[in-house]
Amino acid sequence: MGLELVTAMFCDPGGVVLAEAPTYVGAIITFVGLEAGLEHVECDENGLIPAALERRIDEVRASGRTIKLLYTIPNFNNPSGITLSAERRPRITEICRRAGITIVEDGPYGLVRFDGEPTPAIRSLDPSVLYLGSMSKIFSPGIRVGWVIAPRAVRERLQLLSEATIIRPSIFSQHLALAYLRGFDWRSTLQTTIANYRERAETLLEHLPAALPAGSTWTRPSGGFFVWATLPEGCSADDLFTLVAEEGVVLIAGSSFYADGSGQRELRLSFSLESPEQIREGLRRLGRASARLGHP
Amino acid sequence: MGLELVTAMFCDPGGVVLAEAPTYVGAIITFVGLEAGLEHVECDENGLIPAALERRIDEVRASGRTIKLLYTIPNFNNPSGITLSAERRPRITEICRRAGITIVEDGPYGLVRFDGEPTPAIRSLDPSVLYLGSMSKIFSPGIRVGWVIAPRAVRERLQLLSEATIIRPSIFSQHLALAYLRGFDWRSTLQTTIANYRERAETLLEHLPAALPAGSTWTRPSGGFFVWATLPEGCSADDLFTLVAEEGVVLIAGSSFYADGSGQRELRLSFSLESPEQIREGLRRLGRASARLGHP
Repeated sequence: MGLELVTAMFCDPGGVVLAEAPTYVGAIITFVGLEAGLEHVECDENGLIPAALERRIDEVRASGRTIKLLYTIPNFNNPSGITLSAERRPRITEICRRAGITIVEDGPYGLVRFDGEPTPAIRSLDPSVLYLGSMSKIFSPGIRVGWVIAPRAVRERLQLLSEATIIRPSIFSQHLALAYLRGFDWRSTLQTTIANYRERAETLLEHLPAALPAGSTWTRPSGGFFVWATLPEGCSADDLFTLVAEEGVVLIAGSSFYADGSGQRELRLSFSLESPEQIREGLRRLGRASARLGHP
Repeated sequence: MGLELVTAMFCDPGGVVLAEAPTYVGAIITFVGLEAGLEHVECDENGLIPAALERRIDEVRASGRTIKLLYTIPNFNNPSGITLSAERRPRITEICRRAGITIVEDGPYGLVRFDGEPTPAIRSLDPSVLYLGSMSKIFSPGIRVGWVIAPRAVRERLQLLSEATIIRPSIFSQHLALAYLRGFDWRSTLQTTIANYRERAETLLEHLPAALPAGSTWTRPSGGFFVWATLPEGCSADDLFTLVAEEGVVLIAGSSFYADGSGQRELRLSFSLESPEQIREGLRRLGRASARLGHP
């Protein structure tokens, strides 16, 4: 909802949003729905590549279009699991500031870090950044409470805009969230939650080599919910998706996370919901499907 | 949210929505936001006038525009308090069916009827009608739970559309609503609630004659939350609004409920929130403001 409101406020139809390649499928649907143009920016294991961002800005401008927003999930990106390194954050911020592009920082996974300290939010480097927060990953997705941190002028307009649709998230849910943050030791509870996710991630990463076709590569996230795998040349993720669905396991095909139809050899593996036992069983079935996929 | 989704689904920018004159300000904001054209249809004490609806359809079509929806609040209309009579409902439905216009029936107030049986929903006459329901007036506005009754094909698309924004209303709130409807005698509780509203409406209607300038007229709703007043020729509702605000009472100016700037002598009086004592005090202050307004 926050992203919908921000996009509606900043982007007229035809305005361009830049985003990681790949990026969150729900964000793509939002941008398409509001007729914003989505252009991907190349990433490596440290997230958005500054030189690729500059190049993309130049290309889009050369085509006569206006870039309004950079949408980024800098921590444990959905779907890639990649985190934008602390070193790159000031550089990305500076590039956007010079280009007059507003950064939308989507931060639901930032606190779900397996070890070490959280990477400082991009918002902490530049108060013009619009930060999207959520109770979904630290308390409960079912209460549907999130927030936007934004300059006052933006915030006031977002409130007006939300009056036209949901008016506001459930007051009851907001009180629940408040009571949880005030009345419970939520940081300790979160550590327990994180330990569960870490075990699931480790289980997935331990058994993934045997479950994917030889020559596959994948990310090794240090937090969040997702591992992103790339199959070797000649393999089709869609074919694997079909085969593993016959085994009763659902993966999300990588092409869902691109606006331009790429991602044909890529797939997202989620480890948040299932138990380690279920993950092991799922990977056994994925291994059988991979074997049936055959060699390219 | 339901109205936003329905409008987004049915109306491209420039598509026309017909609605009562006056109509719900939140709906107007939704239509404007989605760049739908809003055209009002004249009402009398029995709601939408069938002949006026036919005339408006002809006029809009003659101007080369396409009418997509009729948006109606047939019971205790917000803001007018007027109810579309049972006799007119089949006629309105038939006119829309022939003209290929989908009816959106907004029904939050229908069960808040002071006496007698509920008027059958327009939806009960035609299964192609899209019905918007809400827990707000029969349980709690704070839980933000409503629903759309629609043909399956529409419903499936609405679900997809909502995935791009709020995904869904709070699951917790939905369970609350379900538990309330299943586990409590909500019909009895509603009767108590209605008795409270009835007392407030009666208090308002009893003291309103002394509180408005001579020559004013107003509706006498048989349910819902609102009375709609019209000041005599030469009086300005905006002026009265300013004067009564100085007395610490807020009314909503009638022009908010029209897309075309009319309603300059009209105002909405809500009786849902305040106690009878507060309503009497508010009307005393309104009386003082009316006296200061002077005679036209």
